[in-house]
Amino acid sequence: MATHYGYTGKSLAFLQKNNLQVGDLVNVTTDSSYNGIIMPRYEYSDDEHIVLKLKNGYNIGLEINKIKKITVESSFTMKREVIPQPHSDPNLPKLLLISTGGTIASRIDYRTGAVTPALTAAELNAAVPELAKIANIDTEVLFSEYSENLLPEHWKKIAEKVNSYVKSEYRGIIVAHGTDTMQYTAAALSFALAGIPIAVALVGSQRSSDRPSSDAAINLISAAKFLVQSNATGIYVIMHNSVSDDEVACHWGTRVRKNHTSKRNAFQTVGESPAYIIRCELIEKNSQFEITKREYLPRINFDTHVALVKYYPGLDPKIVDYLVDSKYKAIIFEGTGLGHIGKVMYESVARAKKKGVFMGMTSQCIDGMIRMTVYESGRDLLNLGILPLANMIPETALVKAMWALGNSKNYEGMEKLMKEKIALEFSD
Amino acid sequence: MATHYGYTGKSLAFLQKNNLQVGDLVNVTTDSSYNGIIMPRYEYSDDEHIVLKLKNGYNIGLEINKIKKITVESSFTMKREVIPQPHSDPNLPKLLLISTGGTIASRIDYRTGAVTPALTAAELNAAVPELAKIANIDTEVLFSEYSENLLPEHWKKIAEKVNSYVKSEYRGIIVAHGTDTMQYTAAALSFALAGIPIAVALVGSQRSSDRPSSDAAINLISAAKFLVQSNATGIYVIMHNSVSDDEVACHWGTRVRKNHTSKRNAFQTVGESPAYIIRCELIEKNSQFEITKREYLPRINFDTHVALVKYYPGLDPKIVDYLVDSKYKAIIFEGTGLGHIGKVMYESVARAKKKGVFMGMTSQCIDGMIRMTVYESGRDLLNLGILPLANMIPETALVKAMWALGNSKNYEGMEKLMKEKIALEFSD
Repeated sequence: MATHYGYTGKSLAFLQKNNLQVGDLVNVTTDSSYNGIIMPRYEYSDDEHIVLKLKNGYNIGLEINKIKKITVESSFTMKREVIPQPHSDPNLPKLLLISTGGTIASRIDYRTGAVTPALTAAELNAAVPELAKIANIDTEVLFSEYSENLLPEHWKKIAEKVNSYVKSEYRGIIVAHGTDTMQYTAAALSFALAGIPIAVALVGSQRSSDRPSSDAAINLISAAKFLVQSNATGIYVIMHNSVSDDEVACHWGTRVRKNHTSKRNAFQTVGESPAYIIRCELIEKNSQFEITKREYLPRINFDTHVALVKYYPGLDPKIVDYLVDSKYKAIIFEGTGLGHIGKVMYESVARAKKKGVFMGMTSQCIDGMIRMTVYESGRDLLNLGILPLANMIPETALVKAMWALGNSKNYEGMEKLMKEKIALEFSD
Repeated sequence: MATHYGYTGKSLAFLQKNNLQVGDLVNVTTDSSYNGIIMPRYEYSDDEHIVLKLKNGYNIGLEINKIKKITVESSFTMKREVIPQPHSDPNLPKLLLISTGGTIASRIDYRTGAVTPALTAAELNAAVPELAKIANIDTEVLFSEYSENLLPEHWKKIAEKVNSYVKSEYRGIIVAHGTDTMQYTAAALSFALAGIPIAVALVGSQRSSDRPSSDAAINLISAAKFLVQSNATGIYVIMHNSVSDDEVACHWGTRVRKNHTSKRNAFQTVGESPAYIIRCELIEKNSQFEITKREYLPRINFDTHVALVKYYPGLDPKIVDYLVDSKYKAIIFEGTGLGHIGKVMYESVARAKKKGVFMGMTSQCIDGMIRMTVYESGRDLLNLGILPLANMIPETALVKAMWALGNSKNYEGMEKLMKEKIALEFSD
């Protein structure tokens, strides 16, 4: 059966007329000549172009109106590689890999360049043969989404899935995850599964595995080694730590931030040192901190009636009124400096307080402590009822507020959870 | 006359009953004993406390109900220090210092610890005697606000003031400014005064000048040296660059960000190197970039119908609908990773586009290039009409959008300005 995945209207008609399908290797003549594979398209794409993957790996969009000639060099067939079954060593510990999507959890089809989200144990071990020497890894596909499309309801499903395996044969769990919102999910699991008696490692990759510079393999291998060799418990993000290939960092789940759009070492621990550094065979404790031991009592609810409001000169205070009127229960401010928002906001903040909205303060500086007693602005905001959130990074504070709201009965309950250190999310 | 600045209700009655005023040095007994100066309070403060400045420099709030005894050790008198007139050297160049407020532009009253905003040339030179050897500095107080209270209308006033001195005897202009929103003002001046034939240095301090660790003096001295010795033109932020006292950085006005709430070296150039490094007497060019020479044609308007929307899992797309319905003309997204927002937003984005709202994409990673052609999410968003804004930092992109909207007649005019590199705000 011919496949035209994502093509609509004019571009679909163009493919059908020329008897072409996704995956065909074609020669195209416009003002220039191109040789490449027809790529799938997606919802919301226009219908004026077809997309080719060129031999250099880049994709190019070609306007169908400008195509003078198109011929098939070789037709796509659905044949799949036969992948050898990984051999399993009964002496090795068992790990589980839960796949949620993103570049790391995908198999690149080298024929079309398209991302195939399903990741079986066999495929995983075939792609990264080193893993079979570290552990026997079972895999489970939970969903297949780029992480910019994950929502708090996905956090809940991941947390429930992890929780269902806590008392199992698995020594630890890897969660394969897109990098865009990995820090939000890591924070969500840190709160929802506080006290978890095993370690969970979120792993992603900044470069897709069909590129020579991909960090997928080293991140996965490091995570597997960490889960097998260390006695750590809790939620971690395990990602590249240096521009070269020899160092991987294991970050606290509540303290990590993606601080660069494309570098492999984009993830950084903020206001702390990464928990562990993994170099070759060595897993080195890298921080004096420990996640407080506590009883494992999963609380897996998130309430999204929480907004993150970044303050800037010219921000209209009516936005706060709108949130209050839209039944938001909590606002996390990303203020300036030590934790300030302009005087223009005071009236709306006072109104929000009166309506029982929880308000917390973080800083858009990202690093450093909130100190609202130093300047009058801060003291005014304290008097207006805004809670200073120490050095919680704004995104973590937002996730914590959704979690605290989802797992408490009233304002006091939520405030109590926000003040309690659950998973190293702030320093004393 | 007794002064009770900021005290109201019960706390005011308490001071009056005990014949006390702000500035008095008192001994207080509660469960403990305290010795300190009664500090002024501010609007929105409660009336249950009085605030003392202790000898160690910290302020403490004492609940008046718990005060068992309070006695005056010495009464505050209004006597001011006599400040020597700075001596002016006719051979030195002239600089102008425009004061807008913040810690740096303030004189600390050592008696009460209160911040006195007026800063005369005499006071400035008395406080930092090194300045008189570098230049003859005139000063002008434009306003006296903590920078979290500055608005785009203040940017306009600062730009107009600077513009009025472009063709004057002054070799350069220092703008003393609070650090909280200094980067926003620096970006605003960079766009409004693009092509300015002199250099303007925004200077702040992270620690107030009554503390031994204050960076006020070295930042001011470095700025004065820079303006006198270099031939640079354009807008710069001059702030501490290292934890020790020997290095100051001169940042491009559009590329600087406050990345720590309290460190003296909180300001960093993002995605670039600082323009100059200033060490002792030496001003060192530190970047291969130059601000493009262009005709000086000040365009000093800002339109605040622009919102910065930071994307996060759980963000309600209705917020975008609300902005569109509230007549916003432009939205700058702070997306994830390479420039993404979740699929849940697409419908509202399409609606905004249809209503003629300009939309641009930046990344909450802060550092790194927006690349919306790599993943389908990005391509979808390009198709929906969102303009990728290269590596502009989100706050700079917001300011640029307010400026572009304020200085163009229609959508096309605004888009053209957003794409044009005005003041090194993005890399090619």
